[in-house]
Amino acid sequence: MIVVMKVDSSQDEIHAVVKRIEELGLKGHISQGVEHAIVGVVGQIFPELRDRLELLPGVEEVIAVSKPYKLASREFHPQNTVVQVNGLAIGGGEIVIMAGPCAVEGEEQLLTTAHAVKAAGANMLRGGAFKPSTSPYHFRGLGEEGLKLLARAREETGMPVITEVMTPTDVELVAGYADILQIGTRNMQNFALLDEVGRINKPVLLKRGLSSTIQEWLLAAEYILTQGNEQLILCERGIRTFETYTRNTMDISAMPIIKKVSHLPIIADPSHATGKWYLVTPLALAAVAAGADGLLIEVHPNPDMALKDGPQSLTFENFQRLASQLTSLVEATGRRLAVPGTTVTS
Amino acid sequence: MIVVMKVDSSQDEIHAVVKRIEELGLKGHISQGVEHAIVGVVGQIFPELRDRLELLPGVEEVIAVSKPYKLASREFHPQNTVVQVNGLAIGGGEIVIMAGPCAVEGEEQLLTTAHAVKAAGANMLRGGAFKPSTSPYHFRGLGEEGLKLLARAREETGMPVITEVMTPTDVELVAGYADILQIGTRNMQNFALLDEVGRINKPVLLKRGLSSTIQEWLLAAEYILTQGNEQLILCERGIRTFETYTRNTMDISAMPIIKKVSHLPIIADPSHATGKWYLVTPLALAAVAAGADGLLIEVHPNPDMALKDGPQSLTFENFQRLASQLTSLVEATGRRLAVPGTTVTS
Amino acid sequence: MIVVMKVDSSQDEIHAVVKRIEELGLKGHISQGVEHAIVGVVGQIFPELRDRLELLPGVEEVIAVSKPYKLASREFHPQNTVVQVNGLAIGGGEIVIMAGPCAVEGEEQLLTTAHAVKAAGANMLRGGAFKPSTSPYHFRGLGEEGLKLLARAREETGMPVITEVMTPTDVELVAGYADILQIGTRNMQNFALLDEVGRINKPVLLKRGLSSTIQEWLLAAEYILTQGNEQLILCERGIRTFETYTRNTMDISAMPIIKKVSHLPIIADPSHATGKWYLVTPLALAAVAAGADGLLIEVHPNPDMALKDGPQSLTFENFQRLASQLTSLVEATGRRLAVPGTTVTS
Amino acid sequence: MIVVMKVDSSQDEIHAVVKRIEELGLKGHISQGVEHAIVGVVGQIFPELRDRLELLPGVEEVIAVSKPYKLASREFHPQNTVVQVNGLAIGGGEIVIMAGPCAVEGEEQLLTTAHAVKAAGANMLRGGAFKPSTSPYHFRGLGEEGLKLLARAREETGMPVITEVMTPTDVELVAGYADILQIGTRNMQNFALLDEVGRINKPVLLKRGLSSTIQEWLLAAEYILTQGNEQLILCERGIRTFETYTRNTMDISAMPIIKKVSHLPIIADPSHATGKWYLVTPLALAAVAAGADGLLIEVHPNPDMALKDGPQSLTFENFQRLASQLTSLVEATGRRLAVPGTTVTS
Repeated sequence: MIVVMKVDSSQDEIHAVVKRIEELGLKGHISQGVEHAIVGVVGQIFPELRDRLELLPGVEEVIAVSKPYKLASREFHPQNTVVQVNGLAIGGGEIVIMAGPCAVEGEEQLLTTAHAVKAAGANMLRGGAFKPSTSPYHFRGLGEEGLKLLARAREETGMPVITEVMTPTDVELVAGYADILQIGTRNMQNFALLDEVGRINKPVLLKRGLSSTIQEWLLAAEYILTQGNEQLILCERGIRTFETYTRNTMDISAMPIIKKVSHLPIIADPSHATGKWYLVTPLALAAVAAGADGLLIEVHPNPDMALKDGPQSLTFENFQRLASQLTSLVEATGRRLAVPGTTVTS
Repeated sequence: MIVVMKVDSSQDEIHAVVKRIEELGLKGHISQGVEHAIVGVVGQIFPELRDRLELLPGVEEVIAVSKPYKLASREFHPQNTVVQVNGLAIGGGEIVIMAGPCAVEGEEQLLTTAHAVKAAGANMLRGGAFKPSTSPYHFRGLGEEGLKLLARAREETGMPVITEVMTPTDVELVAGYADILQIGTRNMQNFALLDEVGRINKPVLLKRGLSSTIQEWLLAAEYILTQGNEQLILCERGIRTFETYTRNTMDISAMPIIKKVSHLPIIADPSHATGKWYLVTPLALAAVAAGADGLLIEVHPNPDMALKDGPQSLTFENFQRLASQLTSLVEATGRRLAVPGTTVTS
Repeated sequence: MIVVMKVDSSQDEIHAVVKRIEELGLKGHISQGVEHAIVGVVGQIFPELRDRLELLPGVEEVIAVSKPYKLASREFHPQNTVVQVNGLAIGGGEIVIMAGPCAVEGEEQLLTTAHAVKAAGANMLRGGAFKPSTSPYHFRGLGEEGLKLLARAREETGMPVITEVMTPTDVELVAGYADILQIGTRNMQNFALLDEVGRINKPVLLKRGLSSTIQEWLLAAEYILTQGNEQLILCERGIRTFETYTRNTMDISAMPIIKKVSHLPIIADPSHATGKWYLVTPLALAAVAAGADGLLIEVHPNPDMALKDGPQSLTFENFQRLASQLTSLVEATGRRLAVPGTTVTS
Repeated sequence: MIVVMKVDSSQDEIHAVVKRIEELGLKGHISQGVEHAIVGVVGQIFPELRDRLELLPGVEEVIAVSKPYKLASREFHPQNTVVQVNGLAIGGGEIVIMAGPCAVEGEEQLLTTAHAVKAAGANMLRGGAFKPSTSPYHFRGLGEEGLKLLARAREETGMPVITEVMTPTDVELVAGYADILQIGTRNMQNFALLDEVGRINKPVLLKRGLSSTIQEWLLAAEYILTQGNEQLILCERGIRTFETYTRNTMDISAMPIIKKVSHLPIIADPSHATGKWYLVTPLALAAVAAGADGLLIEVHPNPDMALKDGPQSLTFENFQRLASQLTSLVEATGRRLAVPGTTVTS
């Protein structure tokens, strides 16, 4: 941590800063520049240190040098985390495709979709039983009934299932059915929920908050990791910007940034990132070209009759086309799509 | 709801849209413009209607005309809601000042602050027992111990207390101590929590989400109102923008906009909006000049020793100065500061 | 400037950084922390220094400590700049009100408005002769004809006039008529234009760019100041955010921030900040409560017939009401509205 | 255009709206919904119409249905525009790579780079002679001397050159040397400059403004097209968001959106979008996977000695690697890199 003194700070003020640092059990090194004196803090930094120094007389600003997250950082964990899900490896070099309807609406809708996406090349089934919705008047999901249908679809197709959990008291219930628990964008900083999924022994997919920086996202991951659950996957799903053409703006740079600063796998959700089905395929291809470990794609047998997010859902035919283009792209980059049961991890 | 057809849409496509509208139990009025045909939908709109129409062939876009929130809107509830809290009226024309430390840290810190802010003119005490924090390594609050201290401070000073609740299972506990339950910015779309505070008989203060539009904020309010709790106060606390000088950017226009489109009281939190104590007073004055019903201000006996948010906390002396400037301003605008026990509502 | 080394940087890399710093004629002080070594750079910093160091092996990041603007900063110019305009002082403690139509549309429109705003308390006339417009199909102003009408209105009313200049080759022309030259938000980083108005001897009003940080705004001011023109006024007119209810979001904190970090006067333009006439008065009051030195307000005799920005224009009646509320507010804060000819500067 | 009346608007108000519409030479169709009456406007819409109606009593809002740009839209120009530059075709299906230094610094720097990027596969040379810079203290380019060096490099390598023009009076000068004139992000709404490059007979590359919506970008394109210059290329270079890890956030969805709503070619500039060299290659691949017609890449012989934007510049070696990965990717998608002289247009 570095304390930058004001241009007109006095020697007394500088020494008072060093004294405070020493009282806190650390050491302070003064470096007198042409304009500003700076005081480097040496020793074990603690979270409140910055606030302890920022208000002292003569201080211009306090700059943190160390990253605030540790367990999520590549610095302290250089090797890639590979999350194993029923024989599928996420983050090990192969590309996983999680596909399915936004919301589980009923048996036929779910099973038809599950079979269709599997036939096209998906290796995991998505579907929401508990649905967050901006308006209280919109469909909020089938609840446990939806979870049961997901389990049924897994049985029929052999694909593991991923579904959202919205509140701490539902974690046990959802974990009883799902193979991966999804934390939605609005819950990225629902700390009680993060704590709770940090204590279970199931993979978790953590979506980036609508307006979260990369750093805040990794700090949310840190909540889960500090509780002991290391089976963690990140998911970029678009951030909020001023642009109104798309529902959100997919931060494509999140793919290489996460790979650089963290060891966690990262997948992309182009359906929520765009809100428009005809943008899903180009953005899915882009995400994989940029280094994503997988995709989360919404597919529906009849998008214009969907109970939720129809406009961003692919038809079976469009999903097939996506999967086929993806195959060419992945091969061109020397990687391959994951094949359940045959996965070898890097 | 209005369906705008593409420039090159065919008569068949237009009629197929009208047919779909009729199948859904509504009526469609075609209006043929120079470039676009438009189809107006007449009848009782339901939430999924938009998605049902947007994907039909030849449709360019579907535009919602009605506001998606009802109970929170002034159209359907023209008179101001006035929330009563132990003899204080919020939203009735007088200005309330809620002040106190970011986090309850201990008995002395809380009681000293409570007495100081009361003496300076505050009429409600704030203080966090459960604290959300971006990092898992930061202080997360004293929990129930903090709630007990708040109750103790209320006894000593007579001021009602406001404190945050972060998860549905804590609602009953917090409601047992607090006079107003605060929903924090990160929980504005924690729907399970909104449902839960919607079912209690205690006032709720709903902070605007970090990146929520006014409309999304009112839809979150709608969640609480639909559960039956109408004692609801909104709080603007800054939104996320590209500017990095301040922690957030206070949306000052939220004050007159909420007054126009909703009947709910609105207060401002300049402490979180700026993150810097020296900006708190000017923004507090601005918020009241723009029409806010009150303020939420962080005050600490020793900001440089605070466990949380010291840099944005006012000292007792600075808070006194704020209160005194506020008094002049409020009088100039023909309003007055609320006085507990003597409040008359408009 | 501070160079933060990577956690795993080697001694050789640290010394190579110091060597590079010395080759550039500066000195480097190594400070070895628990995680990171940091190297403080001592000596006269030059603009490209950061880039020279950032790419060296082992470097994590380079942090600038000094502010990049000098002439615009309060550190290097502690006293307030007061800009004199025909006997009016801007930035000297009194509040100026610049009012008038968005665009000059014709003689009658302009003169009627000029007389009306003067009668209500305005002390300067605004009006655009050259109008920027997002679309090429919209009204682009009367050009020199508009400038002549402004001069005519000044003669009739005695009020100085402010009008926009959009391109370097028009600076001389506009300066021949106007008392203050306005640089619009889209031109805040039109560097050729900044250079050009920096060379004239007329006051300039520099609007904040739509998506400019405070720092970028002050760097744009620095362009003008380095050319020698110190008669500079800043104007906050709203920044672009995700919120769509308003045209822009007025950054109310810009008022106290500019006062703290710079010596330049700052005024607010609530008309462009909101885009809606019914939000103009509350935001005008808020801006002055937050410390603004003045206001820029759009007024039109018939807003629904305006050639530009009618929806954000006040009628004469609404402007009168604003001026009257403003008078009460200003008096409450111990300041006063500027009165032409009688102004004394602080 | 559609006028939405307020919930409580009266029949008189509705009829007054229709009357105003008729006075303006158009027709109004009333459609009475359950909550709102709406009035559809039929006839030739003109730019100010919206403002004429928005302020009438009883009006809630006015919604534009037609796109405000025409010449730039695919609706009115269904076929792709293919821009020809010295035998290279941009927008015709093949991928162009424009590469070179941010700023032209001198003969050796430019020629070495030109030869290196050509050898690696680039087919056009970029380099700035006039450089916009946020700070007046930074390098602002060699001016005409830089243009001469670019011409020299073209002679030596045969590659066409692209360079920025910053002000209307320089257009003729720059057009005398360059093969494509670039309009930078800060000048996207420098309307005098847009008019000027609209009048020449040379291709123009229009970068998206830092905080411009897709629609505003196409309206800026419309300025150029209305002046008669149809040799226009769009360039996505990142937009401003709250994220601070990258310099900007590349809006990857701009690629398929522009392809859908416009006929103009679009290329991507991952160097400015990210500000970090190690993110350039993944984002370049992503942009092409998403449908970009080409790339604009910064390359420098010694990035740590560059006068401008070193941290985002690729070394020759890294550029070679990018070009090679790009070749595999492009082939996988059934497209190919452009080869000068052999180009056939789609």
